[in-house]
Amino acid sequence: MKLEVYLTPEGLAPGSLRGLPVIVIDILRTTTTIAAAIAAGVRGIYPVASTDEALRLKRDLGGDTVLAGERRGLPVPGFDLGNSPREMTPERVRERRVVLATTNGTPALVRAAGARRVLAGAAVNFDAVAAEARTILAEHGRLVFVCAGREGRFAMEDAYAAGRFVVALKHRRRSFELDDGAQAAIAVAERWGKDWLAVLERSAAALMLTALGLGDDVAVAGSQNLYDVVPQLSDGVVQ
Amino acid sequence: MKLEVYLTPEGLAPGSLRGLPVIVIDILRTTTTIAAAIAAGVRGIYPVASTDEALRLKRDLGGDTVLAGERRGLPVPGFDLGNSPREMTPERVRERRVVLATTNGTPALVRAAGARRVLAGAAVNFDAVAAEARTILAEHGRLVFVCAGREGRFAMEDAYAAGRFVVALKHRRRSFELDDGAQAAIAVAERWGKDWLAVLERSAAALMLTALGLGDDVAVAGSQNLYDVVPQLSDGVVQ
Repeated sequence: MKLEVYLTPEGLAPGSLRGLPVIVIDILRTTTTIAAAIAAGVRGIYPVASTDEALRLKRDLGGDTVLAGERRGLPVPGFDLGNSPREMTPERVRERRVVLATTNGTPALVRAAGARRVLAGAAVNFDAVAAEARTILAEHGRLVFVCAGREGRFAMEDAYAAGRFVVALKHRRRSFELDDGAQAAIAVAERWGKDWLAVLERSAAALMLTALGLGDDVAVAGSQNLYDVVPQLSDGVVQ
Repeated sequence: MKLEVYLTPEGLAPGSLRGLPVIVIDILRTTTTIAAAIAAGVRGIYPVASTDEALRLKRDLGGDTVLAGERRGLPVPGFDLGNSPREMTPERVRERRVVLATTNGTPALVRAAGARRVLAGAAVNFDAVAAEARTILAEHGRLVFVCAGREGRFAMEDAYAAGRFVVALKHRRRSFELDDGAQAAIAVAERWGKDWLAVLERSAAALMLTALGLGDDVAVAGSQNLYDVVPQLSDGVVQ
């Protein structure tokens, strides 16, 4: 059994995820927002790497498509929604397509797209994703976490979440091979214990969101098991 | 007072280190090797980002220049020395120029070259660098650590070393601003305690070196305060 953690997507060499099951983590806020949208009954989320790409894809998809995303944490002018889990209500997204363009999370999902399976993990769907991860590990013997980070830099909250998943997975097993990133993620998880909010609130991302008046998103992101969903990216769509 | 840690150089935006004092860390093995060479009386070390660049620079410098470095951990064909601290003996390098090309460490030094000051830190010169770092912090109020990592990925041993430095520096101060990377480095340092070798031996880099028959380099790299030197990069030369 082998668990690996990329603390940022920058170390991903082309093709390095091919054939592997992957869990992408961007707690503040992309994977949290995606879990909220799935729970609200979205038809599908289309993660894209840029605002321009989002506009193009909306033209292609046409009709009832919702444009969502952020740049520097704020909603993009002309888009319908920002990147807040609180915006992903049934009234706004149920049975609709959402094209999502964020600074770190959706580019990480796009980079992982060639993997065997790509799931989106967060605190809000922790137990659901951990259960699926156990099944995957039993089948494949190997699992990779990709932390979205912040513009190429390490992000505390994603490493903490990866550490929490790794600890939950290796709990019952004796011999796990852990790469350097997984060992560091465990160290971060163990240092800060089980209080998601205590960690999130120390992170640079949370400080920025709070300064932008989006502090309530941090509280949502720190709510473990709010949603019983396992978002999976397949053929460009998360469902 | 602010301490920041880049867990890999990939997050360094162009110009982001301008005006800042920086300590580059590549314990296995570049900054360890550089400290050994300085202790052996080298005239100057010229870190370069590639083997080709090393060959060009040797032609320019001419005469008594020593070519050193590695690719995939092994000495480069045609070079005089590898990247082993054990090779940096007075017999081989005293009063000579050494052009050094390594996979992770020298590219990190080259990327940091635009900073206000660039030091090379390791376990072998820990106390000397920590003392200089205290002086720098008192003057500038800010200090950045850049971990070389492994081909864009996180490397446990560099994060541990950065954590040890951060812990040593913040020891006597009450209020330090720590970025996400610094907080994670502390978590890694605290999880593994004070035994350098215990951490180094768990790292992917050490496993590779041992497999290549270079395990003795790991033992040297884990010897705290073997050398009382503070290597500094200035105008392309480390002295």
